[in-house]
Amino acid sequence: MAPVAGHRHPRSSEEAETAAAVAAGQDGEEEPSVEVAFAGQPPPPWWRQVTVRSVAVSTVLGAVLSFMSMRIGLTAGVGPTFNIVASLLGFFVIKSWTRLLARFGVASQPFTRQENVVLQTCIISCSTLSFYGGFTTYLLAMTETVAKSAGGTGTGKDVYTLHTGNVVAFLGLVTFASLFCTLPLRKLMILDYKLMYPSGSAIAGIVNSFHTPAGAATAKRQVLAMSKAVVGSFMWASFQWVYTGGSGCGFQVFPLFGLKAYKQKFYFDFSASLVGVGMICPVLINFSMLFGSIITSFFLWPTLQSKKGDWYNDPSPTNFKGINGYKVPMGISMVLGDCLFQLGSITIRAASHFHMNRQQRNPGGTNIPADGNSDKQTALSYDERRRNKIFLNEGLPGYVSVAGYILFAAVSAIFVPRIFPQMRYYHVALLYAVAPILAFCNSYASGLCDWSLASVYAKLAIFLVGAWVGEASGGAIAGLAACGVMLMIIGNAAELMHDFKTGYLTLTSPLSMFISQVIGTALGCLINPLVFLSFEKLVGKEHLGEAGSVFSAPLATAYRGLAILSVEGTKILPKHSIEFCIAFFLMAFCLDCLSAVAKARKWKASNYIPNAMAMAIPFLIAPNIAIDMALGSLLLVIWKKTDKKNANMLAVVVASGLICGDGLWALPSALLSIFQIEPPICMKFFSSHQNKIMREHFLPKVTTSR
Amino acid sequence: MAPVAGHRHPRSSEEAETAAAVAAGQDGEEEPSVEVAFAGQPPPPWWRQVTVRSVAVSTVLGAVLSFMSMRIGLTAGVGPTFNIVASLLGFFVIKSWTRLLARFGVASQPFTRQENVVLQTCIISCSTLSFYGGFTTYLLAMTETVAKSAGGTGTGKDVYTLHTGNVVAFLGLVTFASLFCTLPLRKLMILDYKLMYPSGSAIAGIVNSFHTPAGAATAKRQVLAMSKAVVGSFMWASFQWVYTGGSGCGFQVFPLFGLKAYKQKFYFDFSASLVGVGMICPVLINFSMLFGSIITSFFLWPTLQSKKGDWYNDPSPTNFKGINGYKVPMGISMVLGDCLFQLGSITIRAASHFHMNRQQRNPGGTNIPADGNSDKQTALSYDERRRNKIFLNEGLPGYVSVAGYILFAAVSAIFVPRIFPQMRYYHVALLYAVAPILAFCNSYASGLCDWSLASVYAKLAIFLVGAWVGEASGGAIAGLAACGVMLMIIGNAAELMHDFKTGYLTLTSPLSMFISQVIGTALGCLINPLVFLSFEKLVGKEHLGEAGSVFSAPLATAYRGLAILSVEGTKILPKHSIEFCIAFFLMAFCLDCLSAVAKARKWKASNYIPNAMAMAIPFLIAPNIAIDMALGSLLLVIWKKTDKKNANMLAVVVASGLICGDGLWALPSALLSIFQIEPPICMKFFSSHQNKIMREHFLPKVTTSR
Repeated sequence: MAPVAGHRHPRSSEEAETAAAVAAGQDGEEEPSVEVAFAGQPPPPWWRQVTVRSVAVSTVLGAVLSFMSMRIGLTAGVGPTFNIVASLLGFFVIKSWTRLLARFGVASQPFTRQENVVLQTCIISCSTLSFYGGFTTYLLAMTETVAKSAGGTGTGKDVYTLHTGNVVAFLGLVTFASLFCTLPLRKLMILDYKLMYPSGSAIAGIVNSFHTPAGAATAKRQVLAMSKAVVGSFMWASFQWVYTGGSGCGFQVFPLFGLKAYKQKFYFDFSASLVGVGMICPVLINFSMLFGSIITSFFLWPTLQSKKGDWYNDPSPTNFKGINGYKVPMGISMVLGDCLFQLGSITIRAASHFHMNRQQRNPGGTNIPADGNSDKQTALSYDERRRNKIFLNEGLPGYVSVAGYILFAAVSAIFVPRIFPQMRYYHVALLYAVAPILAFCNSYASGLCDWSLASVYAKLAIFLVGAWVGEASGGAIAGLAACGVMLMIIGNAAELMHDFKTGYLTLTSPLSMFISQVIGTALGCLINPLVFLSFEKLVGKEHLGEAGSVFSAPLATAYRGLAILSVEGTKILPKHSIEFCIAFFLMAFCLDCLSAVAKARKWKASNYIPNAMAMAIPFLIAPNIAIDMALGSLLLVIWKKTDKKNANMLAVVVASGLICGDGLWALPSALLSIFQIEPPICMKFFSSHQNKIMREHFLPKVTTSR
Repeated sequence: MAPVAGHRHPRSSEEAETAAAVAAGQDGEEEPSVEVAFAGQPPPPWWRQVTVRSVAVSTVLGAVLSFMSMRIGLTAGVGPTFNIVASLLGFFVIKSWTRLLARFGVASQPFTRQENVVLQTCIISCSTLSFYGGFTTYLLAMTETVAKSAGGTGTGKDVYTLHTGNVVAFLGLVTFASLFCTLPLRKLMILDYKLMYPSGSAIAGIVNSFHTPAGAATAKRQVLAMSKAVVGSFMWASFQWVYTGGSGCGFQVFPLFGLKAYKQKFYFDFSASLVGVGMICPVLINFSMLFGSIITSFFLWPTLQSKKGDWYNDPSPTNFKGINGYKVPMGISMVLGDCLFQLGSITIRAASHFHMNRQQRNPGGTNIPADGNSDKQTALSYDERRRNKIFLNEGLPGYVSVAGYILFAAVSAIFVPRIFPQMRYYHVALLYAVAPILAFCNSYASGLCDWSLASVYAKLAIFLVGAWVGEASGGAIAGLAACGVMLMIIGNAAELMHDFKTGYLTLTSPLSMFISQVIGTALGCLINPLVFLSFEKLVGKEHLGEAGSVFSAPLATAYRGLAILSVEGTKILPKHSIEFCIAFFLMAFCLDCLSAVAKARKWKASNYIPNAMAMAIPFLIAPNIAIDMALGSLLLVIWKKTDKKNANMLAVVVASGLICGDGLWALPSALLSIFQIEPPICMKFFSSHQNKIMREHFLPKVTTSR
């Protein structure tokens, strides 16, 4: 554990720095300092950041959000993410509580931004397990009900009866491993690569603005701009909701670039939060994504679709036997190509650094990832210096996290096959061996583009492990369990990294973040199985996942379908899929090499070489997100052109506001969905030809049936 | 004729004024001066404003626009207005011509803004006759083809065979009368009432910005803001077009306030031009209109609709036998009540002024309408003083216009019954007697709210004259001819007043305006019948207005229907319609009295008493325009709150830009319609219930039929 003393009062050198930063901030040309406003409020020590009251609030809110998230997952399938809601609800509960106490004359510890972040992290760690825990996806897919819904017999080794004790044990083993797996990545991603983690940054912006001491003029303007963005984005989200009465309705299906482009999922879906994400992500990333989506939507997919009947036959757009048998493997290959390059370059840099250090015998050399910065320490801004200091000084040393991960992996290898007899210890061990690399890939992608690919890796895990175990040994269940391992480790890695970014930007101690993640995860491992148990009791085991019922759990059925398919092995992949994968893997690797060479040689073109990871995202996810994000970039560029000063001061807070306003709508939208209140109007788009047919055949019926 | 000499060089007192205005303009708090930028360019004398080249260009462009407008009227019914297109096309043609000449070393007279306005007025006077001349409405409705399409026998006195000579004579007699009728209203409306005529002002804004001498900083910013608004509004209009593939599609039917409000036509139709009009119209007018539309949409019409089956039976929303038998008479009653009050108050003020003048023997007293201003001459801005001077000094004296009107009325009373034997001389005489009062009402309404009610009065004329003449004497044709007289006189009055406002704001001589109107009208009386004749030859007489054909001329059929109905007389009006009319007539009158008293006594509430004329508009036209305009007001209020300086400087030019960009889209949209290019996408709105039914019954059909 790192030393924590001497942190409560800024040293005099720090005070001088603060004054300089204040002076620089008033100049207004550079992005203004956030920490200047907080100069009088040093962060409290970690044991004051993790408080009893925040754990209590986390338990309650975690349970509520887990319930809501599971309810939506079991009925509608895909649900909103509650990160922003958790942050804001936590703030208002604690703030109201301290005010109430103050009114009765009871003094309470002040509510700091660090405590706020710790609280939010704890809630998120708990409630995300309702998805990553698989209660609406892979775990439920193992049951007899879903097996029957998916068209199987639902007997023997192909089904698994969920037992709450077993589920808690499985969740606990895997999620705690994921906590340790994430720790060593933290410095690399946040300090060395300086990745943005837009959602995490947005929450940090909100939390900082809530807790900014009164009186700071810049902060006031920022808070005002952010509030406007939050209100506007929230109102826009609720306005959009009104027009989504029915499937295929609303602004989310607006064919902005024509119906042909829409069929290739190339359209703008009017999501304020993704526009905000685009404003935070670097321009190159956004336009690389856009480039990727143009290539896929207009060249690759149409070409592949034209080969239907020749290379493949399955018409389903989600099935690995059909077109998705190209999309997902190709996308993953590109991601892996990029990651391999990144890992390689880290290794080479580390080795050369180690070599140089030995030659110079420099005693002041710090550990590898932070070193890239320590060289340029003087060029860092006031904010960065303050943040880096806290981020580096506190936290667990590297060997603890490695040891922790190995310990949990070993225990899992022994006990997971006991829970799921369809798996062998070597399956589990291999998964744990591969997971950190993929966790690296995923937290890198998520930091770059704000998009977690965990469920894509998890589906690939179903496919590969299912094929490996084979039908006779219960490959379907083994695949689903493998999916769980991957989803939790990889998904949590990205999720927690966002939290670490929030922590970094709010001077929250990494140690208290870790402790709060441990507490939140432990709560989640207990609360979620209990919430699921209550659903089982209330609705009846035989109705959860039943086709056609209210609780049809569409995602569980989809995962089951994949698991059934998987046992047939890689031979189900369509023709030439493997060749394409190799080609795109190499392409990504070469692109990275080219970019590295261009940067090293300081070619001007280096700013125009697309980023391979960002290009890969539209292979795996619908391209419309790339359009939203590119629009965000475009708006930011225009803003900077017309009003550079304000853009520098306000862009990030406005972007955070856009993300948060949209995120906040998750709460009312979830409530509306739970109480089955439908939007009143359906906005829809037809070709004018379709419309003509419809008017002729259909509208008279509606008119007469009124 | 007023003296025109001594106008080419500003006098030294004017120069001093200019300097003062420049100084004031740089202060920036007030609306900036337009004329300061033009101080070095005195307006040319009127004979240099009406040029041969502009008449030549007018002839060509007038013919082209007449053709386009008639083509659309004969196929789709309602078409766009081409005022903005005329202004811009005229500008570009002459500008290119002078540039071309200059390239070949031929010196030509400089193209001034006054010549530009004269040119535009001439084109508009010509091309509007394609609508007011009735080739797509009342004249065509007289033919055998339309009579048969509307379900009649098409024989005897109920039809009239159009003869080009007769048509030219009829148009000439009526339209020239309308020119003289408009002249005396000019000073009253523009100087005394200071009405805005938003469309006219917008064109003036565009013309001024085109001709502003380079170098004026404020003007540059204004031109930039206007160009942005023009481009934005034009692009928005073309964007909207893409989604209107089919009837009932597009942003024009966006149910912003829910489907129930939409059924009452209470919705925002995303028209940038109407928002611009709202920014130019006074706040009180816009909110009076909004108030009127709320009352009608949510209280009056639903109440009356609930009486269906009791008070009336006809379900048609446009038929005078049905709900329209309340709407139109009630609206007209309110308008008449307001006009009666205005006329009364003018008479009283004139009498008292005359009385005072006689007592004081003040030799400097000018004529009545201008007097209201001459008292406050010192309080007028530099721009206003310059404009008023030119506006008052040049132009025809009052007795000329009165004599001209009486002359044309007398000739018409003799000759119109020869053209249409179904009419007697006293019918025509009475129409000519009533027309100036209604022309006053209409140019007042149009100046206040930018909305011409000519076609409403014209329909009422069909109804009243048709009933008076009766079925046996050919009441249908008499009614339609009466409609022509009213439409041309009343419609032209509003149209020409917009031109006069444009002229006023560009220092164009009223005399040259009048001459250009005379030339344009004469051209229109010849060109339009010839264009119609060419349609008759090309398409065949028997197909123009044929039900179900391409040239079905829906408006002609509608007018015919009204004419057939009219011969039954006022007894067709639904129950209690007359009582309602009297009540609303009195209400409007009382509202005006209250407002006048409040203003005289300087009550604070005087700014909150709704304007009766503005309240009446939503009775006659769908209420959605009121919403657009109120939004314009709201935006302006917000803009003035946040950035008063820029709002004062740019609001009018931005509003003009919005109006002009949308108006400019008329040209491509007309071309697309003529070449029958349909928009590709239909955006449509359903209730979520409808959508469910549709998905169940209909969508499988579409999918299989692909």
